[in-house]
Amino acid sequence: MITSATNQRLKRVTALLEKARVRKKEQCYIAEGRRLLLEVPKQDVEMLFLSESMDRQRKQKTEEDPEREWAEWLAGMPCEIVSDSVFNRISDTVTPQGILGIVKQPVYTLAQILSRAGHSVLFLENIQDPGNLGTIFRTAEAAGVRGIVMNDGCVDVFNPKVIRATMGAIYRVPFTVMPLSDAVGQFRKAGGTVYAAHLKGTAAHYETEYRGAAGFLIGNEGNGLTEGTAALADRYLRIPMEGQTESLNAAVAAALLVYEAKRQADAARIGKRGGTKDAETNLETDLETV
Amino acid sequence: MITSATNQRLKRVTALLEKARVRKKEQCYIAEGRRLLLEVPKQDVEMLFLSESMDRQRKQKTEEDPEREWAEWLAGMPCEIVSDSVFNRISDTVTPQGILGIVKQPVYTLAQILSRAGHSVLFLENIQDPGNLGTIFRTAEAAGVRGIVMNDGCVDVFNPKVIRATMGAIYRVPFTVMPLSDAVGQFRKAGGTVYAAHLKGTAAHYETEYRGAAGFLIGNEGNGLTEGTAALADRYLRIPMEGQTESLNAAVAAALLVYEAKRQADAARIGKRGGTKDAETNLETDLETV
Repeated sequence: MITSATNQRLKRVTALLEKARVRKKEQCYIAEGRRLLLEVPKQDVEMLFLSESMDRQRKQKTEEDPEREWAEWLAGMPCEIVSDSVFNRISDTVTPQGILGIVKQPVYTLAQILSRAGHSVLFLENIQDPGNLGTIFRTAEAAGVRGIVMNDGCVDVFNPKVIRATMGAIYRVPFTVMPLSDAVGQFRKAGGTVYAAHLKGTAAHYETEYRGAAGFLIGNEGNGLTEGTAALADRYLRIPMEGQTESLNAAVAAALLVYEAKRQADAARIGKRGGTKDAETNLETDLETV
Repeated sequence: MITSATNQRLKRVTALLEKARVRKKEQCYIAEGRRLLLEVPKQDVEMLFLSESMDRQRKQKTEEDPEREWAEWLAGMPCEIVSDSVFNRISDTVTPQGILGIVKQPVYTLAQILSRAGHSVLFLENIQDPGNLGTIFRTAEAAGVRGIVMNDGCVDVFNPKVIRATMGAIYRVPFTVMPLSDAVGQFRKAGGTVYAAHLKGTAAHYETEYRGAAGFLIGNEGNGLTEGTAALADRYLRIPMEGQTESLNAAVAAALLVYEAKRQADAARIGKRGGTKDAETNLETDLETV
């Protein structure tokens, strides 16, 4: 049992929790808590760390289904046991659950994102707040987004705060980090159309018919899109705002756009008001292979 | 000049920043930064605290408009000067702007909220995250919400993190804290209809026509609405979710609902697809005096 936080393995855990540079170099990250770990493909787990209490708990036989699922998941996994006090010290959460793992980072290509079914693609520029990025992932899954492209100015997606805020969506929405100009170029070549909420936009986002697979550019929390990135858009639109509001929270803006694409696709599918058959055909169409 | 953080007045500032109980007892709160203070009605400011540097800066003559507006706002206001190091210590922000003020809490009644123009009313139950509550205010202003009702299980709206996240909307969206059952009762008596996103809901939020002024119940981040509060709704609806998502972030869910009410009202106004004339009449109609 590990009883010191200066243990070499635990020092690596701390470095992976705190430093994006280390995560990038080792292509690993820390997943903490049962619920999250259950979603990780088992072969991606390099090493688990269990608190003493958690270790004791898992050895108790139980017939409850969730407990059994968990015990089965744990069986045969590489494990280190850590004293409770040390575990609580290294944990990144306020109420540690007694388990965390060093996990390999998944790798997706843009082609994988584009070939997925879905209503839209998100292109994120310089999103800085971990809570916002995580919320965007969570919303993207719910809205049926194909995937998320981030420029390297976004906060590291493997930051533990981002992972927690995704509520597991990080395992279900493919993503990649690459220059947005390249990504947008390939997306357009594959038949997509790129939209940006912008001061120059005149049509409201809910009065725009999304023709072709829709890509949405989302900019930084404080500054919005840079001019260079905004120029990548095929069309500008605006999210109508009343009062003196100058902008919306980035995760809220992304949510309104991807849900409007979903609304139009759903309306077209069931032949209801507010969407066109055309929108369905296009939004749901497979993009060409890139 | 105040040069010690143990100064009685600064201790009061710290207590007002950190303790909801003190804010409630004194009916005051701390507004920090120029941009926010410029929105506060001058007669509500009890005392300002300026850092040495900010004090020096405001005495420099300048012809720039924003600086002049600011100098005019400051003229004649009760001020204490605080040494830079002490100011930075008491400030709640990462990059202190050198000014904060003790401000009287505004008081609104439910009747004031209901009599305002707007598309909908938000009823919040046990929203705990200051960033979420602030984002809900910011989005509510943009979506033309009449006002926000909170139960007393919500995080204190005068928490400095909430205030910052509202981006000034706290001065433009009226709000009140009261039992939701009372508020919903009065809202319904005035002609409103109350909706809740709920597992029992079958119609999608974007396929529901909001008849009568729409009120939306929004529940706690982790647990959703309590059963008692959900039972206050006239109609259940659901926000459609793909993938394995079980719920959305509370601020995202609120944004989707209030923007759908706005979309329908806008569509009805311009006679476009996706809304009915009926919706306009009702959503925009004055509620009866309560």
